[in-house]
Amino acid sequence: MEKIYYLDNASTTKVFDNIFDLMKAENNANFYNPSAAYKNSILAKKKLDEARSNITTLLGGNGGKLYFTSSATESNNTIFNGVHVRVGQTILISAGEHPSVYNSAHKLENKGIKVIEIPLLANGKVDEEKYLDFLKNENIALISIIHVSNETGVVNDIKRLVKLAKEINPKIIFHSDGVQAFGKVKFSLNELGVDLYTISAHKLYAPRGIAGLWIKNGIIIDPLLLGGGQEGGFRSSTENLAGALAFYESSKKAFYDFDKNYEITTKIKSELVSKLGSIEFSKFMIINSDDSASPYILSLSFDKIKGEVLMNALDVDGILISTGSACSSKRAGNKTLASMGLTDSQVIGSVRLSFSPYMEYDIDYIVSCFEKNIKRLYANVKR
Amino acid sequence: MEKIYYLDNASTTKVFDNIFDLMKAENNANFYNPSAAYKNSILAKKKLDEARSNITTLLGGNGGKLYFTSSATESNNTIFNGVHVRVGQTILISAGEHPSVYNSAHKLENKGIKVIEIPLLANGKVDEEKYLDFLKNENIALISIIHVSNETGVVNDIKRLVKLAKEINPKIIFHSDGVQAFGKVKFSLNELGVDLYTISAHKLYAPRGIAGLWIKNGIIIDPLLLGGGQEGGFRSSTENLAGALAFYESSKKAFYDFDKNYEITTKIKSELVSKLGSIEFSKFMIINSDDSASPYILSLSFDKIKGEVLMNALDVDGILISTGSACSSKRAGNKTLASMGLTDSQVIGSVRLSFSPYMEYDIDYIVSCFEKNIKRLYANVKR
Repeated sequence: MEKIYYLDNASTTKVFDNIFDLMKAENNANFYNPSAAYKNSILAKKKLDEARSNITTLLGGNGGKLYFTSSATESNNTIFNGVHVRVGQTILISAGEHPSVYNSAHKLENKGIKVIEIPLLANGKVDEEKYLDFLKNENIALISIIHVSNETGVVNDIKRLVKLAKEINPKIIFHSDGVQAFGKVKFSLNELGVDLYTISAHKLYAPRGIAGLWIKNGIIIDPLLLGGGQEGGFRSSTENLAGALAFYESSKKAFYDFDKNYEITTKIKSELVSKLGSIEFSKFMIINSDDSASPYILSLSFDKIKGEVLMNALDVDGILISTGSACSSKRAGNKTLASMGLTDSQVIGSVRLSFSPYMEYDIDYIVSCFEKNIKRLYANVKR
Repeated sequence: MEKIYYLDNASTTKVFDNIFDLMKAENNANFYNPSAAYKNSILAKKKLDEARSNITTLLGGNGGKLYFTSSATESNNTIFNGVHVRVGQTILISAGEHPSVYNSAHKLENKGIKVIEIPLLANGKVDEEKYLDFLKNENIALISIIHVSNETGVVNDIKRLVKLAKEINPKIIFHSDGVQAFGKVKFSLNELGVDLYTISAHKLYAPRGIAGLWIKNGIIIDPLLLGGGQEGGFRSSTENLAGALAFYESSKKAFYDFDKNYEITTKIKSELVSKLGSIEFSKFMIINSDDSASPYILSLSFDKIKGEVLMNALDVDGILISTGSACSSKRAGNKTLASMGLTDSQVIGSVRLSFSPYMEYDIDYIVSCFEKNIKRLYANVKR
């Protein structure tokens, strides 16, 4: 089998083998329903709450409670379905949100709620000047700004954005989608000052089917899933204990390895940027983030060639990249990059590389494949 | 460690060890995001669709499509959130629905939709006479009737109920919650004639976090989770391939072992019923189902004593039972049993035993523990 270089870790990660071993052992130790009433179930509930509390500690979020959900998409949909917002009020989202925020926010327009997108600057961050204008001129109920962009890795200054909003109206509810941030950039929820925060396990080497929504004490969001009243009535459905324990295990590892992983991915990214910057046709390459971005994600645009064609060509060489997030891979454009001011041609020519500190990358081979394919593709471009 | 007799398999099941091995192997073979665009992802998507199609075949549902969800609760909530129903129309549910149907149906009353509960007969089935009255006198958009009761194991004649409804109005959408039916009683969706059907993996020895909603071709339900557009746009969220494969594996086993399992559970149930019928104070015992019920579930009521107290006493002896479904264990009453005409005292005195054909039960020990505790409890009852 040919060697594969997986550069799409922002899309999903390969679950650690030991996570399945852990789930198997936990299932043998205690598979009971955490909402049943016998001793073993009460123990299962205790284990679930320990996982909850341990992840909350890693989040620096002791001022709120983490609810387990099945996915970040569910967490984000829960917010927009369950937030108390009235006709005449406005929801602010950034132009660089994940589709699960973007689509569930805009759905509220059917109910007469105004939804405004804050444009992005060329550096990928939200435009603070415009943001302040909206804060001053709109009756805002909810703000949702992604912490680390899934498209570019750009890190928004959530703490500052929360402060600006709360100074104008402390009643504004502030959500941040932290799927690409948790375990990868340093933060504490209590310090950020957010009211709602979304995290996901499968971006962190744990299985799909488990994720989280952190809610600050006092913030009211109605449940999305009604039923048996699990998760304190907030999220019905038999509690996924094995998933929650797997999520904590992988989160713990991400924090234990944090500095080492940050260093490794920083090295991978900078070496790639530097070496790609020296290949032929590199003058057509744009790096869609600045140095302050997450080292886990690198977004590049090659003007006048198609990202999709480049992706497919690299796939043949065993190099797996994305043309934007997997979630938007089937869409015509990329809203995040377009809002940053890229031309259509640059947006179409964009690719995303996202790294795992637990995988080996032969940078020289990867760069040589980029060069080979880019050369071939530019040979066909009319200039 | 003392021996445990787990009699709460309708609540959740112990995942087979080999399921975790399978998930681990599949993760190593192909952990890629089924919605990404490189070859391995396309292969992952193919595997997902194979699992989908294989489970659909087991369901006898080639006239529709199975969508993967995270839980039966999500499947049921999706229906009531996404069904096209107008003010002035009525939703019929049985009085014996799972809380995820009951609560999400009744939520629609806030939107001016009328929700009517069809009462149950003493035998636990829906009252057909009343059902026909509602069919004739109401403008019904949607009917939801549980296939096998999670409380009593009673099997509703879904085929007949669908036929009665469609004869009066073929446009009525018919849903059945088949969580306790799939892999445990014989049926084919095409024959039942339903439009929507809910199934769950964790009741069938597969992990939590994966379930299904089958939708007949042509039936329109709006998505609950918006985002990246996975599952053909119906259910956004990164597809849980490992979960889907685990679900198929355990479903396949349930069908392979079907007759054997049915025989084993039938024997367990009938032996329990027979031996419990001979203990002292058995004259106070009511069996809340007839012989046509699922052999996997046995609901008993002991008049004048508390099911909760009995459950806790048996817990000490290593016998794990429920006082109704885990989902309703924290509620004051049990709607299903109350609708069957049990008195409050009988409802309070009810317990549910649910069996696994893969576990050993020492029936004589279990019966002796029931006898010991029931004797003690009735000694305190004023007569």
